Formats: sequence, structure tokens, C-alpha cells
Amino acid sequence: MSGARTNRRQEAMALLERLEPEAPGRVADNLDDFHPQALETLLGFAFADVVSREGIDLKTREMLTVAMLGAMGNAPGQLEFHLRAAMNTGVTREEIVEIVLQIAVYAGIPAAMNAMSAAKAAFRAREGA
Amino acid sequence: MSGARTNRRQEAMALLERLEPEAPGRVADNLDDFHPQALETLLGFAFADVVSREGIDLKTREMLTVAMLGAMGNAPGQLEFHLRAAMNTGVTREEIVEIVLQIAVYAGIPAAMNAMSAAKAAFRAREGA
Amino acid sequence: MSGARTNRRQEAMALLERLEPEAPGRVADNLDDFHPQALETLLGFAFADVVSREGIDLKTREMLTVAMLGAMGNAPGQLEFHLRAAMNTGVTREEIVEIVLQIAVYAGIPAAMNAMSAAKAAFRAREGA
Amino acid sequence: MSGARTNRRQEAMALLERLEPEAPGRVADNLDDFHPQALETLLGFAFADVVSREGIDLKTREMLTVAMLGAMGNAPGQLEFHLRAAMNTGVTREEIVEIVLQIAVYAGIPAAMNAMSAAKAAFRAREGA
Amino acid sequence: MSGARTNRRQEAMALLERLEPEAPGRVADNLDDFHPQALETLLGFAFADVVSREGIDLKTREMLTVAMLGAMGNAPGQLEFHLRAAMNTGVTREEIVEIVLQIAVYAGIPAAMNAMSAAKAAFRAREGA
Amino acid sequence: MSGARTNRRQEAMALLERLEPEAPGRVADNLDDFHPQALETLLGFAFADVVSREGIDLKTREMLTVAMLGAMGNAPGQLEFHLRAAMNTGVTREEIVEIVLQIAVYAGIPAAMNAMSAAKAAFRAREGA
Repeated sequence: MSGARTNRRQEAMALLERLEPEAPGRVADNLDDFHPQALETLLGFAFADVVSREGIDLKTREMLTVAMLGAMGNAPGQLEFHLRAAMNTGVTREEIVEIVLQIAVYAGIPAAMNAMSAAKAAFRAREGA
Repeated sequence: MSGARTNRRQEAMALLERLEPEAPGRVADNLDDFHPQALETLLGFAFADVVSREGIDLKTREMLTVAMLGAMGNAPGQLEFHLRAAMNTGVTREEIVEIVLQIAVYAGIPAAMNAMSAAKAAFRAREGA
Repeated sequence: MSGARTNRRQEAMALLERLEPEAPGRVADNLDDFHPQALETLLGFAFADVVSREGIDLKTREMLTVAMLGAMGNAPGQLEFHLRAAMNTGVTREEIVEIVLQIAVYAGIPAAMNAMSAAKAAFRAREGA
Repeated sequence: MSGARTNRRQEAMALLERLEPEAPGRVADNLDDFHPQALETLLGFAFADVVSREGIDLKTREMLTVAMLGAMGNAPGQLEFHLRAAMNTGVTREEIVEIVLQIAVYAGIPAAMNAMSAAKAAFRAREGA
Repeated sequence: MSGARTNRRQEAMALLERLEPEAPGRVADNLDDFHPQALETLLGFAFADVVSREGIDLKTREMLTVAMLGAMGNAPGQLEFHLRAAMNTGVTREEIVEIVLQIAVYAGIPAAMNAMSAAKAAFRAREGA
Repeated sequence: MSGARTNRRQEAMALLERLEPEAPGRVADNLDDFHPQALETLLGFAFADVVSREGIDLKTREMLTVAMLGAMGNAPGQLEFHLRAAMNTGVTREEIVEIVLQIAVYAGIPAAMNAMSAAKAAFRAREGA
């Protein structure tokens, strides 16, 4: 089974690199330092089992993720990461503005204001890159 | 100003009809019975001001809405409505399956199981139509 | 200490009766059947320790409770109870309409639609009384 | 229609000024920098369409907003803003203490502890003004 | 890789059977009817990858699950399932009462009241079994 | 009644000291500075009325609290406090890793990633103590 398991970690890392080229090393250090199986268990599920599936293209998946994280409001750091990842996979600033406005409809104005702040930080990070 | 206001109600109703052709009459009765301005205030914002905007096509917007409602889990009836609306605007069953799996990543397995039940109900409603 | 404890249960029941005259018996049966101390622990805190405090009148407190339950969306049955209680403590239907609209601003349109449905059920219950 | 639209932005700004006299310029810059229609779409709905309505006075509306934001816990910065706005519209410190305690009943002790910290920050900001 | 994959489904079903002996068939039908990989993706993660891990015994894990589902309040049906599963893995009624009271502390009285109702339904189901 | 009341404050402080020996003074100052009855009302309920009850040992209660706060995601500071308290009452690092993974199942990967960061901060605080 270790063959399948090694693949799952590698698949997760490969997807993460598509989201943000600099992310894999940093994220792997962060998770491996917590528990040797944390990366495969959490990101293997997230990225190898689900987000890398066909059926919806990666750009649209990142739009969905930004909308969900903005609506739930429980993970500001990860919202900002996925806003950068959204742009890395082809989502335009205009589309991000639209997602922020749509968050207001389904989760309220404060959630949208927080998402707007995260979007502006992601825009600045991209300009600074 | 009443001209602009009338337009806003009409724009909301027009968008709602695109989501589900049978919906406008039922929804208008429901809201008008509560307060004469409830429809324009709530759906004018949701549908005339935001969801009918350009920048993201309606099909993708419904995918975002399904993802947000599934992740938040606070409005099962509206999740089922927007699953039907998603199919009415071109979202396929395969794409709905993918959204449900992605909800599991960002909001947990129970949220995804609830979204799966709502999706199956929407699938049945469409077959019965 | 049992004197103070008995008072706390009685204070909670007295406040509950102000919210809905028929409620104390039903609610006490429901909680006592679960655990002999459930009522005092839960409603002693809610009603004797907090809601019966001075500083904000009971009518305004019920407005706050309706707004919070509507915004959180996690307790539809209790939202409907507190909508009836709000009317029993002097909140008007017009004020309830305003609270529902304000829920839309801070928690989104679906939360407000659910609160509207609960409000309409509470209006009907009052008419049927 | 642009006349009605201009009014809606102005109405939102006028309400915002009643909440905090220094806010309109800062908030307008923040939203206009994101998208030219963000202010009207988001704050036009929040403040022109809903919060400036009659039926509930502004002081009571700010009490409702503080209760909702404290219970949801998803927007600490905006909770602190509305605590200052609450005091600006006549809510007393004693009333804010009562709202914090009531948040504990409906959303739990941690939500109330966070609201207490935000309230203390708002109290200090007022003293420093 | 299909060997590892088959094991993952089987491991998930084996854990589910420990939670409720009647559950595997019903749950498998429900998920397989949605998508052939839904069961392995969702329950493979939940039960094979996480809940069947050593480090915390299954009884304590079910207590944690009941507490989380009660606090979040977004999945009443699954809360009731896990209350039955908790009893099947050795959690006593007295312990369930304590968890319900602790939910009140961290998520508020309405969340605890909902958990109490779910607990009473699970108690009745067990008596009827 | 003041005898019972004094006891309740003392009982809350005694429980808090078991969670973190340095906490009582700091927490008492924080709450007393807000309102003279805040400590007894909030922590009297949390710690004297509920968490100090028999029926579940304190170590398991802290595991439940960490799971709930991690799943809800609304109180990062208190999650970190209860992670330290969990270790002070006998929860091992291995058990905390397991709780974090289980949070991922029931509340999603972002909630688990936040809980992991809080756990790592609590681990560092313990090493630095």
C-alpha cells in the first residue's frame, strides 16, 4: 500500500504547486512538523482525492473555494491564499470582485467586507511579486 | 424614483424566472404577503443588483451559490432551490457531484452529506418535472 | 445553598411565563425528563441570570434574541418561539419585519428568508390563539 | 436612473456619518478603491435600503447589529466599529454589558468573551477620542 | 492502486459497522446511488483515514463527534446518528447529558436544546431497538 | 443568597486554576474590569455549573472543548488557551494531533489547519514555560 500512499502525497503536492508555485515547501514543512501523516491525510484528501478530480476545471474550483471560505468566514489566512491561487489559475480581478459581491448576498455584508479586504491584500501581493 | 424602483423589482423577477420558470409567482406571493417592500429590498439586492451583473455568467454564479449554501448549511430549502436552478442554467449532474465533494473539503463531511441529500432531491424533482 | 437554587429555577420559570404563558409546563416537562438539573443549569443561566436582569427591558431583549437566532440560523424552532415571545412582550409586526430585513444585511438573504418564514408562522400562531 | 442611484450612495454615506462622523471618507476610499460600484451595491443595500428605514430607531438597530455580529463572531473589526457606533447613537455602556451577557446565552461563552474584548476596545477608543 | 482503494472502502465500512451494525448497507446504498466514488472519497477519509486511527479510542472519538456536531448545529440527522453510535461504542446516557450541558457553555443554550432533543430521540430509538 | 453566590465565583476560579495555574488572576482582572458580575455570570455558568460537574473527567472535557472550539472556529484565542489547558489536565500531544485530524472530518480542512496552528503555538508555549 505504500506505493499508493506515496503517490497520494505527491499528487497533493503537485496540485498545491499549481495553486501557488512557492507553496509546497512551506506547506510541507508546516504539516510535517506537526505529524508525519498530517500532510497526506489532510491534503491527500483535499487535493489528491477531490480538487485534482476532473469534472470541474481548476479555475472554477478556486472560484468555488473563494466563495465558500468567504461565506463561512472562519479561515482568513486560507481565504487570502486561495485568492492568490485563484489568480494563479486564471481567475481575473473582475471575477473576484463579482464573487465578493455575491458573498454579500448569501452570507451578509460583513462577510463580503472581510472578503474584500482579503482580495485587496491578494491583489497587492501579486503586484509585489 | 419610483421608475427606478419598479425596474429593480422587474429585474429581480426576470432573473428569478431564469433560475426557475415557475418561481416568480410563488416567490412574489410569499414576499408580498410579508411586506410590500420585502421583495424589492431583498431580491432587488440579490438578483437585480448582484446576480444579474455581468462579469461572471449565470451558470457559474449558481455553482458558487450552491457551494456557499452547502458550506454554510443554514438554508436547506434554498440549497435545494439553487440546485434546481443550477441545472436550469446549465450545470450538469456531474458538476454538482464535484461541488458536493468539494464542500466536504472546505466545510466537512456532514455538510457534504446534507448537500448530497439536497442534490438527490433536486435530481428527482427534475426527473418528475 | 438549596434555597438559592430553588429560587433560580423559579426565577427562570417566571421569566419564561412572561415570554409565553403556556410555555413553563411544557418546557419544564421537556427538560426534567432529560435530567433533573437541566432546567436549572440551562434556563437558570439563560433566564434567571441574564435575561431577567435590568439594564435592558424585556421587549428589547426579545428583539435582540430574534436577531441573533435569525442571524445564526441554527435553531429554527427556538426562533419561532422567540418571535411569539417578542410579540407577547410588545414587539409589533412592523418591528419584526424590520428585524428580518436587518438580518439580511448582516447574515445574508437566505437567513432573512428563513426568518421571514418563521415570522409568518408566528403571526399565524398568534391569529389562531 | 442615475439620479436614484446617486441618491442611494448619498443616503448610505449620510447614515454612515450618523454611526461615526469620521467614517464616511475612510470607508468610501476603501470601497471605491475596490470597485466603483462596491459602495453603492453593498452600503446602498445595508444603509440606504435597510438601516435608514423607519420602524425601528437607529439606537435599537445598532443594538441588534452588535448582538448579531457578536453572536456570529465572523467580523471582529466590524463588531468593534458597531460598538462605537452604538455608543454614538445613544447606547450606554451598561446596555452594552447587557448585550454581551445575552450573547453568552444564545451563542456561548467564547462568543461573549470576544464581544467583551471588542467592547472594552470600543470603550477605550471613546475615552481616547 | 485498486488494491489499496478497495481496502479503503472496506475499512470505512468496517468502522461504520462498529458505529451502528445496521448502517453499512443503508449508507452504502445512499452514497453509491449518488456517485460510484462518493463512499470511498468521503467515508474513506472520515472513517478509514481518521476515525479508525489509534491514539484515541472509538468511544472518546464519538464523544468528540457528538460535541462538534452539537456545537456546529448544521447536521441534525447526523448528530442523532452519532448519538446512537456513541451509545453503541460505550458512551453512557449520563455522559451524553454532560456533553449536552457542555455544548451550552461553548455554543449557547439553543444549540444545547437542539442536542438535548436529538439525544432524547436517540434514547428512544435505543429503547425501541 | 450571597453565600451561594460567593461560592459560585470561588468554584469557577478553582476550576480555572486546574486548567491553567496562572489564569485566575489574569482572567478575574479582565472580567471584573468589564462588570462586577461578569465573572460570576459567565464563568460561574461555564466552570462552576457545568465543567466542574462529575460524570465526565476534566481531561475528557478539555478534549471536547478543544474539538468544539476548533470546529466552530470563532474563538482562536480561547482555542489556544484550552489546548494548553488540555495538556495541563493530561491530554497528550498525540491525542491533540488526533483531535485536529478529527476536526477536519466534521468541520473541514481549513478549520483543522487553524486548529493545527493553535496546537503548535500551545506546544511552543509549554516548551517555553
